[in-house]
Formats: sequence, structure tokens, C-alpha cells
Amino acid sequence: MASRRDFMVRAAALTASSLIVGTTAGIARAGQPEKKLGFALCGLGELSTSQIAPALQETRNCRLAGVITGSPDKARLWRAKYGIPERNVYSYDTMHGLADNADIDVVYVVTPNALHADHTIAAAKAGKHVFCEKPMEVSVERCQQMIDACKAADRMLGIAYRCQFDLYHRQCMRIARSKELGELRLVEASFGFVIGDPRQWRLRRALAGGGALMDVGIYALQASRYLTGEEPSLVSATTTRTDPVKFAEVEESMVWHMKFPGGALANCTTSYNASGLGRVRVDAQRGWFELEPAFNYTGMRGRRSDGKTIAFPPANHFVAELDDFAQCILEKKATRVPGEEGLRDVRIMMALYEAARTGRTIALV
Amino acid sequence: MASRRDFMVRAAALTASSLIVGTTAGIARAGQPEKKLGFALCGLGELSTSQIAPALQETRNCRLAGVITGSPDKARLWRAKYGIPERNVYSYDTMHGLADNADIDVVYVVTPNALHADHTIAAAKAGKHVFCEKPMEVSVERCQQMIDACKAADRMLGIAYRCQFDLYHRQCMRIARSKELGELRLVEASFGFVIGDPRQWRLRRALAGGGALMDVGIYALQASRYLTGEEPSLVSATTTRTDPVKFAEVEESMVWHMKFPGGALANCTTSYNASGLGRVRVDAQRGWFELEPAFNYTGMRGRRSDGKTIAFPPANHFVAELDDFAQCILEKKATRVPGEEGLRDVRIMMALYEAARTGRTIALV
Repeated sequence: MASRRDFMVRAAALTASSLIVGTTAGIARAGQPEKKLGFALCGLGELSTSQIAPALQETRNCRLAGVITGSPDKARLWRAKYGIPERNVYSYDTMHGLADNADIDVVYVVTPNALHADHTIAAAKAGKHVFCEKPMEVSVERCQQMIDACKAADRMLGIAYRCQFDLYHRQCMRIARSKELGELRLVEASFGFVIGDPRQWRLRRALAGGGALMDVGIYALQASRYLTGEEPSLVSATTTRTDPVKFAEVEESMVWHMKFPGGALANCTTSYNASGLGRVRVDAQRGWFELEPAFNYTGMRGRRSDGKTIAFPPANHFVAELDDFAQCILEKKATRVPGEEGLRDVRIMMALYEAARTGRTIALV
Repeated sequence: MASRRDFMVRAAALTASSLIVGTTAGIARAGQPEKKLGFALCGLGELSTSQIAPALQETRNCRLAGVITGSPDKARLWRAKYGIPERNVYSYDTMHGLADNADIDVVYVVTPNALHADHTIAAAKAGKHVFCEKPMEVSVERCQQMIDACKAADRMLGIAYRCQFDLYHRQCMRIARSKELGELRLVEASFGFVIGDPRQWRLRRALAGGGALMDVGIYALQASRYLTGEEPSLVSATTTRTDPVKFAEVEESMVWHMKFPGGALANCTTSYNASGLGRVRVDAQRGWFELEPAFNYTGMRGRRSDGKTIAFPPANHFVAELDDFAQCILEKKATRVPGEEGLRDVRIMMALYEAARTGRTIALV
């Protein structure tokens, strides 16, 4: 079975992406030395190792300054590999010490979902800005606590919705919102893969909060929202489990649909047990457009009913989102992906679980 | 706006299809003159005119022997064009006279949905076999009446599910059922188009019984059933209407999902107001396969996750289904598309409307 990494990475992004990042994250003024914000990665799992740390090396506004990990072995490896000074290495229990470390500006929380609030709040209390992986947390209440903590500390909170910084998705948003092909009628979006190691935290309810929906279905949910530009008013969902051992605690697959105030419908699919699921298709009045694959790190392809393609040079989503967040901090601008945006998705996902559990369409207000 | 015909026909099928038909409908024994069954077309609208009558000219087991129409003008045109004798022309009120006409073996009912029962029952009472367009009727009760009438008359009843005779769909069934790519997990199926003339019967509830679901969504429903080989146990649906004038009586679009006893999920979309919607995608344990376009008369394309294509020479679905039905009559074999099959879809569609109306998941038994 393919690992999540095999699935997501493919021809992964060593490509220089400054050209593209320049268009989304802005370009430093000529002749002026750039301020690079110090990032500490909190959680040194696969995503940090294979995607985020390499991406940090390519950013213009960020540098990998520290790590927060429960593993002394990992700390040693990372110190050696990235030249991180010992004083910038923390455990989850010593995060309060970040308050005295001016070398670290931002904590990027990459721990399991149900730990995001604890680590975000600890970082905020230590006076650090927080960038946090999606899903933001496992309940609306915990998301709100994160927002409140960052607000109280006057620190910025961003959620790592990398597709919000991807040119394919930006182009799709533009086509949808400009009504170039008329009013948007239908969104079909899917994302899934065959999950590997049955012992991983993603399959444990206490750590993940849910299954395929929380992990990858959230991409389809986000896409439906940013393509329509609306919040769903009605949702309905059905889950399934064909492997009751592996998926004893979280859903294996979910199909759901959402109705939007303007009349558009979204039909979404996610799975931890289906290979190659990853598409966005929009049907509008006068035509359609789609991305497939839509949510991989690289290799996306887009086409339109009028025969045009949607194509851009390769770009690293992580570089783009990290540079944008740093720039927002430096320029005191609002981020496109604030905690409130993460909370919206969590609220809808909770409604989807309720819909699946009760067999009822859930109205959202 | 494209008409239904423009949409469906495209490079439509004048292609000789005997090679293909031979594989699905059997080949007459060499040296033996074939018996061609006489078909009377009941309802001379667009589908009869542009698809069925031309297809009948290409069949081996059928001939266009008569017409049943409410329009003397159409009767005249059809008599002239197809050399139909005056005695083989009926109106809806004179169908009982078919009992005395040995030249007509089968009545093909191509009238609006809510008239199918009346015309089927009249044909059966006159001793004729009946082939009937889908959807079979607008209620389960009326479908049952059709089945009962044909049974009482000892006549065969078939529903015109053309994709059941299409080689692309047969191949997909084979891949799914043989578990060549492992257990089937997810089916995504969609079919829709932008409906033209706002005065047509398809937009009148009394004649159509419903909107996009009844007319083209039924293809996605059928595909979900014949690919899984199972009957759905749970269904959920949401409808939308963005043009309240045109779609005052029937749904404009519907998204729905279905859960199958084996654990597979189907996620379906249909619309009368979205162009180019027509796909089937199956995600199985070890790969996926899809058809897009999936339900057009011609021009289908199929691909698989292993890089293989699904491709066949062009073939006319109507020729294939008509020859098969005639052969079933001639050989006293059961048809693959009996009235019971039509009723199953109508029962599910009624549950989908109930689900959309009540906002509840409906359990089917």
C-alpha cells in the first residue's frame, strides 16, 4: 500500500519557485536586506521532515530557527542537519521558554490534530506568532481557544491551507468568482488515498478527531467554499467502513453534499481507502473547468470546457504559504488564512459528522 | 443554449455497428432467414425521430412496422419516410386495435414518463410485447401496474436502459465485478445538461414526474447499481433551483449519495442547468477506472489508473438494445432490463425525492 507520503509527494518540489512565489507572496524591495523570520517547527513527523523543513530553505522571508519535539533523537538529527543551535531546541513541556528567545518569531504547529490547541496556546503565551496545520483542531471550542489565545497575546494565527496559495486554485477561484463561465452551479470535489501504517495517529480518534474527512476531505470542503465564495447552508453526509479493524475509531470514507445560499451544490468524496481520488470540477452556466489531480503537492493539471488548459510552472505550496504568512507579520497585514477560517471548516466538519450520525440534513447558520 | 439533442448526439451514430451488436445481441444462425419483429413506435418526438427510427433500420432482428401518434401530420410524414402502411398507424385512442394486427409484435413506448403506464397497458392488452423508455413511470404503483399487465398478457416488458448494452459500460461492470482492481469503494457518477425549450414536457411535473433526476440522473443511479452489483440501503439527497421560473415544477439539480450493503458509497450529481456533466468514476482498493463522457450516445472515453484505456469501436446503443430485446422475445429468454429493473430505479428515485424533501437519510429495504 502506498504511504501518504508516496501519494502526496510524487515528483516533489525541489523546483525553484521564486518566480511563482513572487506573484503570490510579494517581492522584497530592491536593494533592501530582507528580514527573515525565525520559525520553530513544533512536531517533527513526516510532513515537517519531507515538506516543511526543505521548503523553509527556499523561502525569502523565513528561516528554520528551532524545533520543538518530544524526541531527543530527532532533536539531535535536526540540529546536525539544519545547524540549529541547542538553545533553540524545545520539548513540548519547555515551550514557555520560547518567551525568552528572540531568535524565534513563529511557531509552526505540525503535531497531531488534537494537540494543536495546546501547542498553539503555549506558543502564543510565549509571545510567538503561530502557523498551524489543518485541520485546525478537533472541536469548534478548541479552535476558538486558539483564536482567543493569539488575540490576547496580540500574535497572528494562520492555518496552513496550502491550496489557498496555489496558482491553479487561485485561477479556479478567479474563473468561478468572475463568472467568466456564468453562475457556478455545481462543485464536485474529492480527495483520498490508501492509508498505510495501521498504527499511525491519523487512525486514532483521540489524536485525529476524525478520519479521512479531517485529514484530506477538508481540501474538498475548502475548495467548495473558496470556489463558491459562500458558506454552506445545508449539509448531509454518509460514512462507510469496509475495514472495521483499521478503521475502528475513525471513518474510512465519507460522501457529503452541501447547499449554498446562491443555489450552488457541492458534492464531495473523501477516503482513506481509495487510491487516486483527487479532483475538483466546477460546472457553471456556460461551461466547466476542473483540476485533476487537484490537491497533490505537484503535478496538477487543469482543463476547461472551452479547450483551454489551466497550467503554471511548478511551485512549492509550502514556500508560498510560509512566505505569505511571514510577509503578513512583517507588514502587519491580515492573512488570507486566519484562525477564523480554520474554525469555519471545523464547524462544518462537525456538522458533517452529526449529519452522518443522525441521518439528517443539518442546517448551518 | 444547447438542445438536448445537440448535447446527446454529437458525432451521432450512423456508423455500422453490426460487429459490436453481434457480440452483445448474438448472431443469427448462418443460412437461416432471420425473423424480424415488427415494432410500432408509440410517441414520435425527438428521440423516436432522431435516434430510434434510424436505429431500427440498422437492426438485424427488428423493423419499423408502425407508429402510434396523436398527430395526423406526423403520421403522414412517417408513413412517407418509412413506407409504413396506413393500417399500421394508430392514435393513442385506437391502440386496442393493435390486437388485430399481426404485423406488429412490439410496441416501443417513447411518450412522456407519466403516460408510459397507460400506453404499456394498452399495448399489453392488445397482445403486444412492450419496450419502454426510462424512467419507467412516475410512481412505483404505476410501474407495478405495467409489470402486472404484461404478465397477465404473457408479454415481455423491457426498459430501454441503453447503457446496459454498451461495451464501455459492460467492460466497467466486468472490471468492477471481477474485482480486478480489488473491492469497489466509491462510485462517482454524474449526468446533466442545460435544458433548452422551457415549454417542453420534461419541465412539467404532471408529465415528467420529476426533473433532472428522472431524465438523466437515472443514468448515474443505474451505473451505481450495476457497477456495485448491489441495491442501495441508504440514500440522501439535496436539490437546488437557481431558475425558479424554468424549474417551477421540477428540480433543476440534485446531488445525492447512496450506501451499499458491501460498504461502497456512491456520490451522484445531476442537473438540467450545467453543461458537460457526464462521468462515471470507480475507486477500488488497488486503482480506479472511469468513463468521461460516460453517457452520451457516442464519443465515450475510458481510462484506468494502470494507464490502460477502455476503448471500443463506435456502436449504436439503440441498435444493440433493440436487437437484444427482439432476440429475447424470439428465443423466449429473459431480458437483462425487465420491468422489475425499471421499478427498482423508480423506487429509489422516489426515496431520493423523499430524502430531499424531508432532509433525512432514507433507509431502503
